[in-house]
Amino acid sequence: MGDKDTVKVLGFWVSPFVHRVLWALKIKGVDYEYIEEDIFNKSSTLKELNPVHQKVPVLVHGQKVLAESMVILEYIDETWKHCPLMPQDPYERALARFWAKSVEEKLPEVSGATWWRGKEKERGLKQDIEILEKLEEQLQGKSNLFFGGESIGYLDIVLAWISYMLPVWEEVGSVKILDTCKFPALTSWTGRLLELPLIRDNLPPQDRMLEYFHNRRQEILSNPPRT
Amino acid sequence: MGDKDTVKVLGFWVSPFVHRVLWALKIKGVDYEYIEEDIFNKSSTLKELNPVHQKVPVLVHGQKVLAESMVILEYIDETWKHCPLMPQDPYERALARFWAKSVEEKLPEVSGATWWRGKEKERGLKQDIEILEKLEEQLQGKSNLFFGGESIGYLDIVLAWISYMLPVWEEVGSVKILDTCKFPALTSWTGRLLELPLIRDNLPPQDRMLEYFHNRRQEILSNPPRT
Repeated sequence: MGDKDTVKVLGFWVSPFVHRVLWALKIKGVDYEYIEEDIFNKSSTLKELNPVHQKVPVLVHGQKVLAESMVILEYIDETWKHCPLMPQDPYERALARFWAKSVEEKLPEVSGATWWRGKEKERGLKQDIEILEKLEEQLQGKSNLFFGGESIGYLDIVLAWISYMLPVWEEVGSVKILDTCKFPALTSWTGRLLELPLIRDNLPPQDRMLEYFHNRRQEILSNPPRT
Repeated sequence: MGDKDTVKVLGFWVSPFVHRVLWALKIKGVDYEYIEEDIFNKSSTLKELNPVHQKVPVLVHGQKVLAESMVILEYIDETWKHCPLMPQDPYERALARFWAKSVEEKLPEVSGATWWRGKEKERGLKQDIEILEKLEEQLQGKSNLFFGGESIGYLDIVLAWISYMLPVWEEVGSVKILDTCKFPALTSWTGRLLELPLIRDNLPPQDRMLEYFHNRRQEILSNPPRT
């Protein structure tokens, strides 16, 4: 699949993991072909290219095939070195990786505030608040516009779902998570992120996200967690 | 905590995540102070240094504090650049990160073959076989001695637990996982790894591991998984 320099991305329209890859490629000015996958009816191409996880995104760069959004982001940054996404200082790089990994691992619990009811919802909300408090601390008292400094970088891209997807989850779950009074620095950060043409002009349509996640919630509620 | 250049590691004697960090520091020839933590009665120092996860390993380098073994490995590699642990080629680097992450995410399920009985054990064993098959494919037909090439690197260090801890788990769980006939390349790799003085001379004592994991299994079995 693919000539030496062609870039293809297998994605799914609403996946925040896929959007990370697309944004990174746009920042680098790399042309790519986008191929929409039906993740509920996976293609043989997807299964062949990502046999371990069978998930999107998959990046195909010439003969090279990669999966896992955060791995792909670092590959993009190391392959096209202009407009670096990662900080240059080893400690700053490590902190970016640490926060990206830590928030990612909490995602299944974090989204519980949206999907569930009762105690499960409360537990999810508690997780949300804890993780947002940690991120708020990272931004507070700094003059940086973004986690990455004056322009968006790796960690901003990884966390960008907070700016546009969390509000949709809040609406679907009838819950307020990113409270402006509790999280002023994070709220400002989401505002700045959404003002960037790169992000603003490349988001899934909000009405389609709302419909999709409303339906997802119904499916999830009809299959409650094991307690 | 610490002068500009001092290196300290908070660890726990049997943690494979901690050993990764210690081996990486030894490869780089970096002197460090090792501080043993009681992970069942965590110190205020650990809670202060790693408030997000409260887990070992924690690396303290002067005033800089880092958690998460794979993040620390990359930090060590980027800070002390001689004897590189990561491959130089961006795609090889990405593959090393991909396999490290993929195996790490499966660890809770993989260890099920050791801890559980009945269907849970079978499920764990199935996961083990699947992941080992993928790793076997990565080594097969290559002339490399290690995942990292001619000498051990990032992925070897991350996966090294397979060489010395998996046999202990197999004994504790009365199960054979790393079958030599099914996984000849992986078996050879574990043999080569254990011949390296760096690894061989810096392992937790086997009798202590056996006792520890026997006890852990009893604790886990008295608190069965939710089905």
